[in-house]
Amino acid sequence: MGIAGLGRLGQFHAENMAGRAPSIELVRVVDPIEDVARSTGERLGVQWSTAYDDVLNDSSIEAVVIASPTPYHAPMIEQAAAAGKHIFCEKPVSLAREPAERAIPTARAAGVKLQIGFHRRFDPDWAAATSRIKAGELGDVYLFRTSLRDMRPPSIDYIKTSGGFFLDVTVHDFDTARWMIGEIDEVSAFGAALSDPAFATVGDIDNAVVVLRFASGALGVIDNSRAAGYGYECSTEVMGSRATARIGYHRRVNVEWLTPGAATVDYVANFIERYPRAYVLELEDFAAAVRTDRPVAVTGEDALAAFMLCQAAERSFRQAGPVKLRHTKRDGHVVYETA
Amino acid sequence: MGIAGLGRLGQFHAENMAGRAPSIELVRVVDPIEDVARSTGERLGVQWSTAYDDVLNDSSIEAVVIASPTPYHAPMIEQAAAAGKHIFCEKPVSLAREPAERAIPTARAAGVKLQIGFHRRFDPDWAAATSRIKAGELGDVYLFRTSLRDMRPPSIDYIKTSGGFFLDVTVHDFDTARWMIGEIDEVSAFGAALSDPAFATVGDIDNAVVVLRFASGALGVIDNSRAAGYGYECSTEVMGSRATARIGYHRRVNVEWLTPGAATVDYVANFIERYPRAYVLELEDFAAAVRTDRPVAVTGEDALAAFMLCQAAERSFRQAGPVKLRHTKRDGHVVYETA
Amino acid sequence: MGIAGLGRLGQFHAENMAGRAPSIELVRVVDPIEDVARSTGERLGVQWSTAYDDVLNDSSIEAVVIASPTPYHAPMIEQAAAAGKHIFCEKPVSLAREPAERAIPTARAAGVKLQIGFHRRFDPDWAAATSRIKAGELGDVYLFRTSLRDMRPPSIDYIKTSGGFFLDVTVHDFDTARWMIGEIDEVSAFGAALSDPAFATVGDIDNAVVVLRFASGALGVIDNSRAAGYGYECSTEVMGSRATARIGYHRRVNVEWLTPGAATVDYVANFIERYPRAYVLELEDFAAAVRTDRPVAVTGEDALAAFMLCQAAERSFRQAGPVKLRHTKRDGHVVYETA
Amino acid sequence: MGIAGLGRLGQFHAENMAGRAPSIELVRVVDPIEDVARSTGERLGVQWSTAYDDVLNDSSIEAVVIASPTPYHAPMIEQAAAAGKHIFCEKPVSLAREPAERAIPTARAAGVKLQIGFHRRFDPDWAAATSRIKAGELGDVYLFRTSLRDMRPPSIDYIKTSGGFFLDVTVHDFDTARWMIGEIDEVSAFGAALSDPAFATVGDIDNAVVVLRFASGALGVIDNSRAAGYGYECSTEVMGSRATARIGYHRRVNVEWLTPGAATVDYVANFIERYPRAYVLELEDFAAAVRTDRPVAVTGEDALAAFMLCQAAERSFRQAGPVKLRHTKRDGHVVYETA
Repeated sequence: MGIAGLGRLGQFHAENMAGRAPSIELVRVVDPIEDVARSTGERLGVQWSTAYDDVLNDSSIEAVVIASPTPYHAPMIEQAAAAGKHIFCEKPVSLAREPAERAIPTARAAGVKLQIGFHRRFDPDWAAATSRIKAGELGDVYLFRTSLRDMRPPSIDYIKTSGGFFLDVTVHDFDTARWMIGEIDEVSAFGAALSDPAFATVGDIDNAVVVLRFASGALGVIDNSRAAGYGYECSTEVMGSRATARIGYHRRVNVEWLTPGAATVDYVANFIERYPRAYVLELEDFAAAVRTDRPVAVTGEDALAAFMLCQAAERSFRQAGPVKLRHTKRDGHVVYETA
Repeated sequence: MGIAGLGRLGQFHAENMAGRAPSIELVRVVDPIEDVARSTGERLGVQWSTAYDDVLNDSSIEAVVIASPTPYHAPMIEQAAAAGKHIFCEKPVSLAREPAERAIPTARAAGVKLQIGFHRRFDPDWAAATSRIKAGELGDVYLFRTSLRDMRPPSIDYIKTSGGFFLDVTVHDFDTARWMIGEIDEVSAFGAALSDPAFATVGDIDNAVVVLRFASGALGVIDNSRAAGYGYECSTEVMGSRATARIGYHRRVNVEWLTPGAATVDYVANFIERYPRAYVLELEDFAAAVRTDRPVAVTGEDALAAFMLCQAAERSFRQAGPVKLRHTKRDGHVVYETA
Repeated sequence: MGIAGLGRLGQFHAENMAGRAPSIELVRVVDPIEDVARSTGERLGVQWSTAYDDVLNDSSIEAVVIASPTPYHAPMIEQAAAAGKHIFCEKPVSLAREPAERAIPTARAAGVKLQIGFHRRFDPDWAAATSRIKAGELGDVYLFRTSLRDMRPPSIDYIKTSGGFFLDVTVHDFDTARWMIGEIDEVSAFGAALSDPAFATVGDIDNAVVVLRFASGALGVIDNSRAAGYGYECSTEVMGSRATARIGYHRRVNVEWLTPGAATVDYVANFIERYPRAYVLELEDFAAAVRTDRPVAVTGEDALAAFMLCQAAERSFRQAGPVKLRHTKRDGHVVYETA
Repeated sequence: MGIAGLGRLGQFHAENMAGRAPSIELVRVVDPIEDVARSTGERLGVQWSTAYDDVLNDSSIEAVVIASPTPYHAPMIEQAAAAGKHIFCEKPVSLAREPAERAIPTARAAGVKLQIGFHRRFDPDWAAATSRIKAGELGDVYLFRTSLRDMRPPSIDYIKTSGGFFLDVTVHDFDTARWMIGEIDEVSAFGAALSDPAFATVGDIDNAVVVLRFASGALGVIDNSRAAGYGYECSTEVMGSRATARIGYHRRVNVEWLTPGAATVDYVANFIERYPRAYVLELEDFAAAVRTDRPVAVTGEDALAAFMLCQAAERSFRQAGPVKLRHTKRDGHVVYETA
């Protein structure tokens, strides 16, 4: 495989492909900044270059991981599809609806696989809980509740080009909600710019609460923050008629340190500390889908569904009221439209 | 003190007054059902009768605890005030606005104290967290999140006369929100009848999510259930710019039982198992207010504020959109009106 | 009831009798220091005096709690027995074997009840675990493991008169071991003076490990400290063929405080913070034994058995090798002798 | 690297070398049973054979992992040393003292590195705690306490050739004790055959408690079991004058499942489930020592020291009393002798 885009997450993907994912061989890393490409390639002992074409033209490369900035995702998917490479692309596919709606069928028409980086689906904790939930151990689901919080906001320059809070942060929770519980009929979003007035200045928010109504009738609550001063958090609860399941764990090491008056454990600061396994496992699963020619676990259509939910959240937040959604099946895929 | 109303909570109050609250002497228990009154009186070794007047006319009784069904609360407050007894009344004061608006000033005019049974304010866990939050340890508050869930719903007969989900369940969380964070500008409520179609039949719900906007700008989320199959839960999180505080604990005994594949602890089934101390401490605090003639910690006006928030939640739920509120100060008390 | 001896634990007992133990009425408190007796009596609203006889001669008093320094325990038991009062006495009964061997039959001959203050037997956590263990839920017991640690050592003056580390500290664990598991065949004790050379100077230790062999064949390990800098700890594990049970809990309030890098809960500093309920429940249980004329739950003979185990530990520590014990039944009571 | 010996742990090492340890390339797997060697080699995509010589004669192989049964360890170390291969050998080096005392200097004389598989030193939890302890955060150490328990005993056939309980199980704890706290002056061992009379029949035990006296004066307690019915456990506590540190964590996934009356998490069954990272990290550290030509982290002399402590435990257990040890430095290595 090759990888294009060596930012923080791209670096982490490249390291996983090089050393922690047994079934994957990393052949080449690409980044437009020569220093980044060279140092990463040398560190990992693989080829490097600054041109995406070097990956696409390399016949020894079967698949490419796209971890570049979001605006490049859709065109790079199309290029990879044209070159016959299977594609693993980071979320979201695009900042607007159209590029995704064009890129996804292009990949399908080219007969290449396209998987989207919703890593939580592969985390052993979420996977174990979801499997028990799907087996009916909770009974009827009444409430889905999830928190995704970052410790510190990115730069305001990044915020301006992020596609907005819901598309940049909540998108993960929309995918998790669909995966664990099912389709969503209504989204109501609430937000506030609390940590820094710069968010309001650029028309964005840094904290949000989103309420969902699932097609099953169950309620859902998402809370998100870009400024959870204490650390990174990703926790989920699913409450049903017979039991409730809770997922969460945010420690680097399992040492309890007791001092007068206090018992203390450590706490993670970011997603890389929280999800060392999930990022490996999603790539391994993608590789297995390619190798055995089975469908990928997270499709482009899943990304599009999450995008539509983000857009509904954005609209709900702007107009201060619930937004209803319709979801139909087309070619075996769920397609969302604002009702 | 005397107590009127010996249902489940009344019994528990009576036991606390008789044996676990050192500063209180229980003199008489009253219940319209003679068997209940007699057996409770005999068990606790105090006088008993079926007439509320027997408490009001007993000059050895300084204060009365009212734990009768809600419709009787307001008239019984007025009678106690007329008799010059200090009053501890269970929440809510009434199912409609007017009786509370009449009873509360009546008590004040009579010069008797009136405290409302929001017991969570006296629980050592909530009290400790709130005191650290008020000391500024969290920095700016961004999110208030709380869950209150009952294991099993009451009978549909009770539901019909309960005043509705928000007034019967969420009222506690509204009080906690005001106490821990501050006044509330906007309420958006979402509900569903999921556990039993009978709820829908009587026009009520059994699960709800309520989103708050505080005057400070902070967001709030409440989730409530009447049918949390796994057990009773009351947990709160307050997230700020510097830290987040979490309260929750639902064990009867601190024994961990490890068997192949599983480590298990016990879990409470109801509020009496969760709050053995809080119910004692609220009565002790009321007694201290009476004895030292200082203001009570939870006023009738607090009950009225919570009532107005419940009503806003009800309206928000019915009309599917946020309801804004105004809160002003009158005679040192916060008064809420729908905006 | 009356109480004699108003040191730290005596005060706590007196408060429990006055306000937290519904079935007990505290009539009089006694302490040789007039100021202590008066202030306690006035604070609790009961009679007070400086003479033990004032309790013994008061015909309204059925039972007396003895919480004076250990050397007075045995003679005060004998005086109370002569006066026909039931007796609750703090552990140990005496610093040597003979006074206990005289006092215990004296009480029995006088027909009064004598209960010893091994409070852990009444703690809801230990009681729940023990009841499940006795029901066979662990299968065969292989290992009993317990820790009892104090945060700060008492004064060296107290140490000198304490009867030695094992009699002052380990005695509780010997009783717990017998209660939860059964009789003990062999004791091996190891000790060290680590926190302060003054312990060695007076021939005592401040940290110890004691290994037990139970008659059932199971092994046991006790670790004790007078200088566990982090706080008070009392934790027990019992491991069996089918499961293991763990008891421990050392928090005052259930609030988790998360800050960057750390999640922190509070931690208790002493036995009063850890055992608020156990001390009430042991007195309630004693009162119930008196009222219903049933045997007490912790007998003088239990105290004597624990004393013999302490003495064996002392000898094992001095001679650096295991000490074997014989235990036989006499008049329905287990009697220990060094083998 | 190559690996010889593909039992359960050998398989796990081979998988780690093939796919999870980025800095290691697995070239060849060897096992005398052809089926085992072939299927492992094919599964991992590496060469395989039944002859140890095939590893030793392969000039592309720099280092060998020895995971064969213990009696083969010492001779295989000597053969590898003769072939100039660096050596990673599972513990213990031998069942008797002499083979280890010959093999270790042989490796040193040959100029090859020899590292022993005490994996706990590389576990992130133990490593983090030890590093803080060595930085002095605990103050003076008073007590070291550790549990190592297996869920189910191996076959009695294995037991007969295991070298005895202490050498097979406790050896890990002796190494951890030396690493975390320091050298040991005295060992007292207690054991029992409780789960199966077959242990007694072959003169072995299945449960043990070992008490240590460290040169620093601190006390230590080890408890071990081959029949901890509830699961695998490896937990350590180090208590000092200022704090206590606790290590332990035995979950596969971080999901809490709450049902009426119980909150349950999962629990591991064996060391592979508990230590997925430690086994990778010890191999990575060994590879780094080879690559950068620095001393290995766990030497043959460490293995010999642990062996001497096991032998002392064995003798203490047989003669029912403490066994004293002398430890001196020779050529920069600690050498233990029974005093």
